[in-house]
Amino acid sequence: MDFAFDSVTEDLRERLLRFMDECVYPAEEAFEEQAATSGWGSPPLMADLKEEARKRGLWNLFLPGDHGAGLTNLQYAPLAEIMGRSPSIAPTATNCAAPDTGNMEVLAGFGSEWQRKEWLRPLLDGEIRSAFAMTEPDVASSDATNISTQIIKDGAEYVINGRKWFISGAMNPNCKILIVMGKSNPDAPKHRQQSMVLVPRDTPGLHIKRGMHVFGYSDADHGGHAEVVFEDVRVPADNLIGEEGGGFAIAQARLGPGRIHHCMRMIGMAERAIELMCRRAIARTAFGKTIAEQGVVQDWIAESRVRVEQLRLLVLKTAWLMDTVGNKGAHTEIQAIKIATPKTVEWILDKAIQVHGAGGVSQDFPLAGLWAGVRSLRFADGPDEVHKRSLAHRELKKWM
Amino acid sequence: MDFAFDSVTEDLRERLLRFMDECVYPAEEAFEEQAATSGWGSPPLMADLKEEARKRGLWNLFLPGDHGAGLTNLQYAPLAEIMGRSPSIAPTATNCAAPDTGNMEVLAGFGSEWQRKEWLRPLLDGEIRSAFAMTEPDVASSDATNISTQIIKDGAEYVINGRKWFISGAMNPNCKILIVMGKSNPDAPKHRQQSMVLVPRDTPGLHIKRGMHVFGYSDADHGGHAEVVFEDVRVPADNLIGEEGGGFAIAQARLGPGRIHHCMRMIGMAERAIELMCRRAIARTAFGKTIAEQGVVQDWIAESRVRVEQLRLLVLKTAWLMDTVGNKGAHTEIQAIKIATPKTVEWILDKAIQVHGAGGVSQDFPLAGLWAGVRSLRFADGPDEVHKRSLAHRELKKWM
Amino acid sequence: MDFAFDSVTEDLRERLLRFMDECVYPAEEAFEEQAATSGWGSPPLMADLKEEARKRGLWNLFLPGDHGAGLTNLQYAPLAEIMGRSPSIAPTATNCAAPDTGNMEVLAGFGSEWQRKEWLRPLLDGEIRSAFAMTEPDVASSDATNISTQIIKDGAEYVINGRKWFISGAMNPNCKILIVMGKSNPDAPKHRQQSMVLVPRDTPGLHIKRGMHVFGYSDADHGGHAEVVFEDVRVPADNLIGEEGGGFAIAQARLGPGRIHHCMRMIGMAERAIELMCRRAIARTAFGKTIAEQGVVQDWIAESRVRVEQLRLLVLKTAWLMDTVGNKGAHTEIQAIKIATPKTVEWILDKAIQVHGAGGVSQDFPLAGLWAGVRSLRFADGPDEVHKRSLAHRELKKWM
Amino acid sequence: MDFAFDSVTEDLRERLLRFMDECVYPAEEAFEEQAATSGWGSPPLMADLKEEARKRGLWNLFLPGDHGAGLTNLQYAPLAEIMGRSPSIAPTATNCAAPDTGNMEVLAGFGSEWQRKEWLRPLLDGEIRSAFAMTEPDVASSDATNISTQIIKDGAEYVINGRKWFISGAMNPNCKILIVMGKSNPDAPKHRQQSMVLVPRDTPGLHIKRGMHVFGYSDADHGGHAEVVFEDVRVPADNLIGEEGGGFAIAQARLGPGRIHHCMRMIGMAERAIELMCRRAIARTAFGKTIAEQGVVQDWIAESRVRVEQLRLLVLKTAWLMDTVGNKGAHTEIQAIKIATPKTVEWILDKAIQVHGAGGVSQDFPLAGLWAGVRSLRFADGPDEVHKRSLAHRELKKWM
Repeated sequence: MDFAFDSVTEDLRERLLRFMDECVYPAEEAFEEQAATSGWGSPPLMADLKEEARKRGLWNLFLPGDHGAGLTNLQYAPLAEIMGRSPSIAPTATNCAAPDTGNMEVLAGFGSEWQRKEWLRPLLDGEIRSAFAMTEPDVASSDATNISTQIIKDGAEYVINGRKWFISGAMNPNCKILIVMGKSNPDAPKHRQQSMVLVPRDTPGLHIKRGMHVFGYSDADHGGHAEVVFEDVRVPADNLIGEEGGGFAIAQARLGPGRIHHCMRMIGMAERAIELMCRRAIARTAFGKTIAEQGVVQDWIAESRVRVEQLRLLVLKTAWLMDTVGNKGAHTEIQAIKIATPKTVEWILDKAIQVHGAGGVSQDFPLAGLWAGVRSLRFADGPDEVHKRSLAHRELKKWM
Repeated sequence: MDFAFDSVTEDLRERLLRFMDECVYPAEEAFEEQAATSGWGSPPLMADLKEEARKRGLWNLFLPGDHGAGLTNLQYAPLAEIMGRSPSIAPTATNCAAPDTGNMEVLAGFGSEWQRKEWLRPLLDGEIRSAFAMTEPDVASSDATNISTQIIKDGAEYVINGRKWFISGAMNPNCKILIVMGKSNPDAPKHRQQSMVLVPRDTPGLHIKRGMHVFGYSDADHGGHAEVVFEDVRVPADNLIGEEGGGFAIAQARLGPGRIHHCMRMIGMAERAIELMCRRAIARTAFGKTIAEQGVVQDWIAESRVRVEQLRLLVLKTAWLMDTVGNKGAHTEIQAIKIATPKTVEWILDKAIQVHGAGGVSQDFPLAGLWAGVRSLRFADGPDEVHKRSLAHRELKKWM
Repeated sequence: MDFAFDSVTEDLRERLLRFMDECVYPAEEAFEEQAATSGWGSPPLMADLKEEARKRGLWNLFLPGDHGAGLTNLQYAPLAEIMGRSPSIAPTATNCAAPDTGNMEVLAGFGSEWQRKEWLRPLLDGEIRSAFAMTEPDVASSDATNISTQIIKDGAEYVINGRKWFISGAMNPNCKILIVMGKSNPDAPKHRQQSMVLVPRDTPGLHIKRGMHVFGYSDADHGGHAEVVFEDVRVPADNLIGEEGGGFAIAQARLGPGRIHHCMRMIGMAERAIELMCRRAIARTAFGKTIAEQGVVQDWIAESRVRVEQLRLLVLKTAWLMDTVGNKGAHTEIQAIKIATPKTVEWILDKAIQVHGAGGVSQDFPLAGLWAGVRSLRFADGPDEVHKRSLAHRELKKWM
Repeated sequence: MDFAFDSVTEDLRERLLRFMDECVYPAEEAFEEQAATSGWGSPPLMADLKEEARKRGLWNLFLPGDHGAGLTNLQYAPLAEIMGRSPSIAPTATNCAAPDTGNMEVLAGFGSEWQRKEWLRPLLDGEIRSAFAMTEPDVASSDATNISTQIIKDGAEYVINGRKWFISGAMNPNCKILIVMGKSNPDAPKHRQQSMVLVPRDTPGLHIKRGMHVFGYSDADHGGHAEVVFEDVRVPADNLIGEEGGGFAIAQARLGPGRIHHCMRMIGMAERAIELMCRRAIARTAFGKTIAEQGVVQDWIAESRVRVEQLRLLVLKTAWLMDTVGNKGAHTEIQAIKIATPKTVEWILDKAIQVHGAGGVSQDFPLAGLWAGVRSLRFADGPDEVHKRSLAHRELKKWM
């Protein structure tokens, strides 16, 4: 047992931290200003940051294997945390932003040679963006077998009909491709009914209806969260990813690393929040002493530190399990971090907001926006309650 | 001791409930649609609703004395709860919306005859809106003696310089008048340094800079939350409310009833949230049973009911104390409801959101918007922590 | 709506408070000393206190109707709170201690003339004590229809077989009579299978096996919590209370007032805990300032006050509902106070203990003992979770 | 970074687990029975268990260096967890029980040759027991510089006067030696005023007054928690441990490993509680389904697993830090585990108790006893609040 990072990780951490200090944090203010007028796409300064990150070798760090940086989950995890400290900029700048990351993993792992050339290549180069269309308004998203969008084979084509929402990134005009999950084989066994197909965003019948809000935020600089309607959308049969009925399995494979990335980025947000909370508490005076001298605020700071230290270790261990025993062996831990992380980080952000008073809920600090994103992860990929139930079943089985 | 409402209250409750059923709830969808395009003012349908409410005798219910409906706090409180069930519409429709309510109370209680004719009259008639400019970005708002905006007597005028923010309603073009709190007598004792003056919104030097966001919301249909800069703003000396140095006392007097209104409206929101939570839980199925059958969801519903019942009684008792022993005698309870209400209602809204999944955080349900408003009341008029400290001091004094 | 006590209540409160000050609190230390050596019975000084209370007209206050003081639930409730401030002494001294209270109510309401003469009379006079034998070790006590003890008619007798535990008071040698709940009519509808019979404690076959502990406490001064085995215990048929199959209904009737008494006494304990917490915090210094000056401790004190104020009002309203609309109409509230009270008071006691440090968990302060009693009420009469489920079902039904 | 145990640890874990299965768990029932009649000492069966443990090489595992098993903190930590699953038996059986462990560490690290021969030797052999006398009733124990017991040099002797309480183990007749902390140099700088001296338990003037209770428990089988009065107690100057004024430093050195042991044992208790909770939930039926099928209980089980996994990793990392960067470098983490562990484990035990109903608080399950011990660790070595404050100060300093 050893709690020190290896040298590859240490080296990349150092370079990434330097990139944050030299390029990312200094760009935050301008980013917000540009974002206010740049519609559904990335603010223009992002292009330079991407070029700079790539030049520094901080590119596609998330992707194992030959297509990317080739890091293990455990090596990438602490880098995701650092990116999470400036989550609107750093992940995109380093081409490590969801949902492209998961989509690239899917294409690298399950895509045909043609699919990889056509779609993985420009994604790896950061030239286009993509979306992942799974969640539906009419069914509980915790139960993936519920999905009702139809993907019907018709000769050499698939015909897609259905309604999706909260499809992150799909409002971005630079989003060129969607991976769509739907039901292709309704008579197959429960977990073999789904397929995934690639649908270019400009395919006729694909309607981007509106951007869904998250606590008032449109998240325009991330391409929003679209409601998308598929009306007799036709794509060539070659657009099927993997095999028919393989959609559920691909979705599962996509989940594990995604959870680790999400959780580590949230830990980065928590660290940023602690920093902001401390700085504000030191700077602000009320009733004759600084807020930092108030016992209750000290309690929040200490609790934040105590909770985030525990949480980070669990996420790192999960990454290690993914690397050593795989998705299945890490099942309990992958659920555990999904349950623990949003709740813990939400708590910390709430306290940081409270220390900032009215400013904390406003556009003048990043806290309220981070909070809204983190809170919505308490039900993304299924609400925490579903995951707890499943985790409890496994625990109970040990004693049956 | 008697827990039944009196007949005046019962009668008004019945009429108000009917108004909600017949006019308010049916208007909610159209209100949201109009609000999306009506800028910083009220959606146009509001005019009809106001007329209707006035016709039904549901007008200025909040205001005691001859100028209004003449109800006690205890009589009005249950009506405020009912309005809170549709908080974007019902309070405005009945001319019972903050901050006009508090401003009308101030003018009715402390205004000169001229001030009442000029400003109270059109407010009572719902012809104009108003704002209350107290909070400042640069000082902790919990400590009102901190206020730094200057109100300096210069001959027959007052000259105002300073910066305020989160001035609710001030973005509304129909907002014609601001009550501004500032420091007029810096050498007086601590609680006699502040004055309040009336400043018409079109006075030269008064700059409405921008709307502050609350989480992602601009609250445009309420006239937003403005940042306002006062640059050598001059008003006649007659615009002083009450006497010089009397600002702090007026602010205190304004607080008590406002707290009760706010708290009761929040209880109405909580009841609405419980209803939505139950309806959704009954309607939605996951993993083969309705969400309503899940033990954890039942636990939330029960806890919500148990908490809201306790809370309502405390707010009602506080109203009764205000009526019987006054602001000072109700001091502990006024602080207690400020502490208890946002926290409790926030918890209930959070659970209702969770039951709604992704929809719950979106514009398709009112829950996330309500949540944002309630959460920001955890620091409005000073953060809960300051109020707890003060309440604890009084408790400790009993045993010293 | 009126939050003031009526004059009967005010008068009795005043007299009871004087009794507490003059007789009860001064006896606490001697009580603990005597209790250490007085086995399973009341310490000897209790006899004098009872005589004194009776002389002062503070006797059987709990009992409505002619047999007792004739108070309503709403009138008695604030008196129960006062008694709860010294819960080992005051309830017994005033002949208002559980389980005698509930047993007297049962006998007054359902007992035959003979039963009242034989058992109610000496109980009313405080000459004997009694026990209520319902809970069983082998079945979940939340589900009263589960009860497995058999009460079989055999000619002119009932024969009882079964095992009960946590039968409070039954270790006390002065406990002369047990009301035993069991199954008499296994083929009747679910809620008509149970009966209650009177079993004198010296009946052959009734074995008091041992005292159950609550955390480390034996509660000897209350007669402990006995495990009792019934082996072919025979009583005359006249010992049946009410009618065969009526046991469940009697148990339900017994519950309502008992809940109010328990809850109000717990609120009295909470008030005592707040007092002790404040006094200690004022008296104790660490790191150069008193504990009372620490922000976190102030937060606990304020939260305690805020929570207990809400809770008390709900219990009082429940008493009022019991008086005005009866058991059934107060169903939700009776469950609500069962859920809210132990949890809230446990929290307050925990904080008071923490302020006392090591002393707080020891025999030198009453806090740990109170805590243990309160915590066990989180599952007495069925765990909170069962009550929440049932309350949620009623809430959900409103919207179905 | 590597989350696997090394081979030394794996081997010892396996042997210890076998010892638990073959010897410890089977002895639990008899242990409780013997404990009921064995006064303040260990039940007789402990002697055999100790012999067996020693034979199996499971002896003094806690002690680094030549005197003990020579394990690192990181190697011993998982063994302490296993022992914690049966905390009344396993630590004592393996001679790894507090406070002997800390006392042996002190003697091994700071004792003179004579002291080691006289007192360390028999402790290492498990022939005698010892106590550590630090906590005082009259001063806040969180502030060690507060200590008021006097240790005055008088010729070739030290004279001790003062009052201590909660001196664990001191009621045990086999406890032969106390390490006493007191003030020897009141004029020295704040942290150089204290000294530690060895005081044989039979020294004249040393009075064991009474056993303090912890929530009703006397903890007799651990030798209780004594109140001890020192009245002109005289010991030879050779009984000083280390140097005069060195007491505070020794106390600090003693703390670190002790915290890790305590925390890992508590994690073992938590695991035991989860097991008991699951087993009971599976076995018990109410309202037609097992408790394990209830959503709220599943939620508790899942939360317990999620929390304990995070907590364990933090304690293990702290052990690793102690081994690699020492006490000072691990300062934040040592405080963090002190804060996090009792709170988390208390929560889990509470839920396990609730699942057990009345049985859970009784002597029929170990849960209530474990709870009482864990809860009192929320203020042992200073209340959590003090540690949080100190941790917050360090966090704030990063940003000053």
